[in-house]
Amino acid sequence: MSNPVIIDAEPGTSYADISREFDAPVGAVFRAHADPHLFAQWIGPRDLENTVTHWDFRSGGGYAFEQRDAEGNVYAFRGVFHTVVENELIIQTFEYLGAPNEVSLDSIRFESLPAGRSRLVDHSVFPSREVLDTMIEQGMEKGMSEGYEKLDELLAGR
Amino acid sequence: MSNPVIIDAEPGTSYADISREFDAPVGAVFRAHADPHLFAQWIGPRDLENTVTHWDFRSGGGYAFEQRDAEGNVYAFRGVFHTVVENELIIQTFEYLGAPNEVSLDSIRFESLPAGRSRLVDHSVFPSREVLDTMIEQGMEKGMSEGYEKLDELLAGR
Repeated sequence: MSNPVIIDAEPGTSYADISREFDAPVGAVFRAHADPHLFAQWIGPRDLENTVTHWDFRSGGGYAFEQRDAEGNVYAFRGVFHTVVENELIIQTFEYLGAPNEVSLDSIRFESLPAGRSRLVDHSVFPSREVLDTMIEQGMEKGMSEGYEKLDELLAGR
Repeated sequence: MSNPVIIDAEPGTSYADISREFDAPVGAVFRAHADPHLFAQWIGPRDLENTVTHWDFRSGGGYAFEQRDAEGNVYAFRGVFHTVVENELIIQTFEYLGAPNEVSLDSIRFESLPAGRSRLVDHSVFPSREVLDTMIEQGMEKGMSEGYEKLDELLAGR
């Protein structure tokens, strides 16, 4: 059994609080968010292949990546890094270019746990409840669960 | 009488919808958001003096500015520009460094109105209702009203 993703999106709010534990130290989990070659290996669901097309990982920088399915459909994403604090915090925007200008803002905290474990806590704020509901309907939980399972495998060196 | 600022922050939401009309064309209002020398002349309440310390106005760029009061107290702000579309749209983050890591996200649309007038429509999303309430208690409406009155004066060439 892998560690579960916990997504808490209380009715009436337009944000989700997401947490996920890892059987790996905080530094390794942060590095998998910081390094584009590692990031491309785990982000998103299993049936999509990632290509990072822009990567400038620093406060004031930005990123872009594409996900491609077996049929060749391409889904593109981009954002800016408002804040990057090593091993502690990433605050970044996120936009799926298929729904242009519906930008969300993630504050991702990295917490150290005993026994070389760690926890990621993401406060993910959407422009409205409707946008959040659309994300949930479109499989946000599956995409995150499968992504973090791939991250588990990457961290375990598999 | 100047044009009013309308701030709509429905109970239970963590965002505010702000609109303000201007007796000036959309291009002039956008330019006052794009040019750091113009921006410094109008942003914020009347009793504070602005200094722009960083300005890179483009999608993926960023900004920083400081506001100084008569006693020499300095209030610093910074953010990143997620999207800039000339005369149409700015999507940007906003952080007051006195409340670090409480980042909001503004989607500012510029609309043309008849007779050389225009309207600014800002969807301003906060990390939580508590942060939005704090902003309102700390004089968000006064700061915006006075700022847009200064912008009126700037646009009128006074």
